[in-house]
Amino acid sequence: MSVDPYMRGRMKDVKSYSPPWQIGAPCDGAAIGEVVASKVDGFAEGDLVQHGLGWREVSVVKGQHALKVVAPEGVPESAFIGVLGMPGLTAYVGLLDIAQLREGDVVFVSGAAGAVGSLAGQIAKLKGHTVIGSAGSPEKVAWVKDELGFDAVFDYHDGKVSKLLREAAPDGIDVYFDNVGGEHFAAAIHALRLRGRAALCGAISSYNDDSPAPFQLMQAIGKRLQLRGFIITDHADRRQAFIDEVGPWVADGRVKFRETIVEGGIEAAPHAFIDLLRGGNTGKMLVRF
Amino acid sequence: MSVDPYMRGRMKDVKSYSPPWQIGAPCDGAAIGEVVASKVDGFAEGDLVQHGLGWREVSVVKGQHALKVVAPEGVPESAFIGVLGMPGLTAYVGLLDIAQLREGDVVFVSGAAGAVGSLAGQIAKLKGHTVIGSAGSPEKVAWVKDELGFDAVFDYHDGKVSKLLREAAPDGIDVYFDNVGGEHFAAAIHALRLRGRAALCGAISSYNDDSPAPFQLMQAIGKRLQLRGFIITDHADRRQAFIDEVGPWVADGRVKFRETIVEGGIEAAPHAFIDLLRGGNTGKMLVRF
Repeated sequence: MSVDPYMRGRMKDVKSYSPPWQIGAPCDGAAIGEVVASKVDGFAEGDLVQHGLGWREVSVVKGQHALKVVAPEGVPESAFIGVLGMPGLTAYVGLLDIAQLREGDVVFVSGAAGAVGSLAGQIAKLKGHTVIGSAGSPEKVAWVKDELGFDAVFDYHDGKVSKLLREAAPDGIDVYFDNVGGEHFAAAIHALRLRGRAALCGAISSYNDDSPAPFQLMQAIGKRLQLRGFIITDHADRRQAFIDEVGPWVADGRVKFRETIVEGGIEAAPHAFIDLLRGGNTGKMLVRF
Repeated sequence: MSVDPYMRGRMKDVKSYSPPWQIGAPCDGAAIGEVVASKVDGFAEGDLVQHGLGWREVSVVKGQHALKVVAPEGVPESAFIGVLGMPGLTAYVGLLDIAQLREGDVVFVSGAAGAVGSLAGQIAKLKGHTVIGSAGSPEKVAWVKDELGFDAVFDYHDGKVSKLLREAAPDGIDVYFDNVGGEHFAAAIHALRLRGRAALCGAISSYNDDSPAPFQLMQAIGKRLQLRGFIITDHADRRQAFIDEVGPWVADGRVKFRETIVEGGIEAAPHAFIDLLRGGNTGKMLVRF
C-alpha cells in the first residue's frame, strides 16, 4: 500500500482537488492487492491488481477500477504504484509539460530522494541536463549523488538553502521542480534565471503548519518567471507516453529507484505515513500487508 | 515627464531588467519634449517628441530615439506616455497575453486607480468581463466605480484585503492583475478559482522594504494556478495591435483616463515620484516642466 504526501491534505476538511477523508470511514489511496475471489472475467484468484482502495486489508473492487499488474523481468510489482505509477507520471509531466524543460536548462529538484524528485532528476539527467538536488540526510545525499548521478546535491540541514543552492548552482537555474515549498521555494526563486520556470508539485515543508512561502514578487517580474501548480490526475492522457519512454529505462536499470517498505500491515500504516512526512523514506514509501 | 513605480527599482544597485541609475549621472525615463533645435530631417523646431531622456530640462536626443507625437482630436499629447504609451501597453499585454484572458473570466485588478490598473480593468470591462478593483482612497474608489464602471471596488484601508475581496467577489476570481503584491497577492491567490491566472506586473507595496509576499503554495497546486511575471519592453511587437484596439476607445471616450500633473519642473520631480509611491496619484503621474 502506498502512503503519499498528498494524503496529508485529505485530513483537512477543506474543498480541494482530492476530497477529504471522512471520520469513521476507511481512508483510501493507491495499493496493489492479490485477488482472493473474482466474479469478473479477466481477473483470477492469485492475480495482482492495482487499485485505489488502500488503507484496508480486504476490499471489494469493481473490475473497471482494477488494473492487472504484469511487471517486466527485474521490476517489482510495487513499481506500478511508485516509479512507474502516479509518482513517476508526476515527475514526467511536471518536468516536461509543466516546467517545459528545454535544451540547456539547469534543473533544481527539491526532495530529490523522494519518489517524485528522484525520478524527476534522473529524467532530466537522461535528457542531458545539469541537475541539482536537495535531500534531508547524508545517506540520501549520497544515494542521489552517487547512484542517481545528480551533478550536485546538498543536505538542507547544512545551512541556509539559499546559500547551499548558490554554491551548488553558482550560475543559477532555469527549472525548479518544487516538492518542498517554504525556504526551498524562496531560494529557488532567487536562483532562477531569466525566463525560468517552476513546476509547483508539492510543499511538504508546510503540510503540518500551513505556513506560506515567502515570495519575492519582483524577482518573478524582473526575470519573467513562470510558475505553475499541477495535479497529476489532470494528465492521465500522458500515461502512455510516460510508460513508453521511462518504462525501458526502469527495466534496463538506467533509471534507479528505491522503495522504503514498512512491514506490519494496517497497524503500521499510520506510523509509516507520519514517518514519510518527517522524511523517513528514501524513494517510494510503501507498507506491506 | 513621467514618473513610474518601476523607477524605484533603478535606485537599487542590483542586476535587473532595467539598469540602475548611476550616482552623479542624470536619471532617465519617458518624457515628451519640444524640439528647440534640430539637425535631423523630419523634426522641426516646435515639434513635440516622445523620448527616453526624462529627469532633465534640456537634452540632446538622437533622431532614432525620438518619436513625433501627433495626438488625435481630444487626446492630450501626454497620453503617449500614459494611457496610449508604456503603461497602456502594459495593461493590454498583461491582461490578454500574460493572464490569457478568456470568456467568462472574473478579473481582479489591484491598484485600479493607477495608470496601468485603470486601463487593465477598463479593457476587461469593454470585453464583457466582471471586474473588481482595489484602490487606496474613497475618491479613487468613487472614480474607478462610477466613472470607469468596474463592477465592484474596495478601499484596501477598510480592512483585511482577503475579507474585502471575498465580499467583492464572493464566487472567486479567474484572473488577477497584480500591481501591488503583499497582502493583495495573498488574498488573490486565495480567491483564484480552478485554473486561474495571475499576471505579475508590479508589487508597489514592497518597493521600499523588499518584504516578500506570503504565498500559499498548496492553493496554487490544488487549483492549478499559473503565475507569470512580465516586463513590457519584451512586448514591443504588440504595440500596433494595442494602438489599433485601444486607440479608438481612448479617442471616442469609451476608455477614460486621468492624469495627475505636478507643476514645478525638475525641482518638483523627486517629490512627485515619492508621492507616486505613496499613492498620491490618480491615473498617470506626470511632472510638467
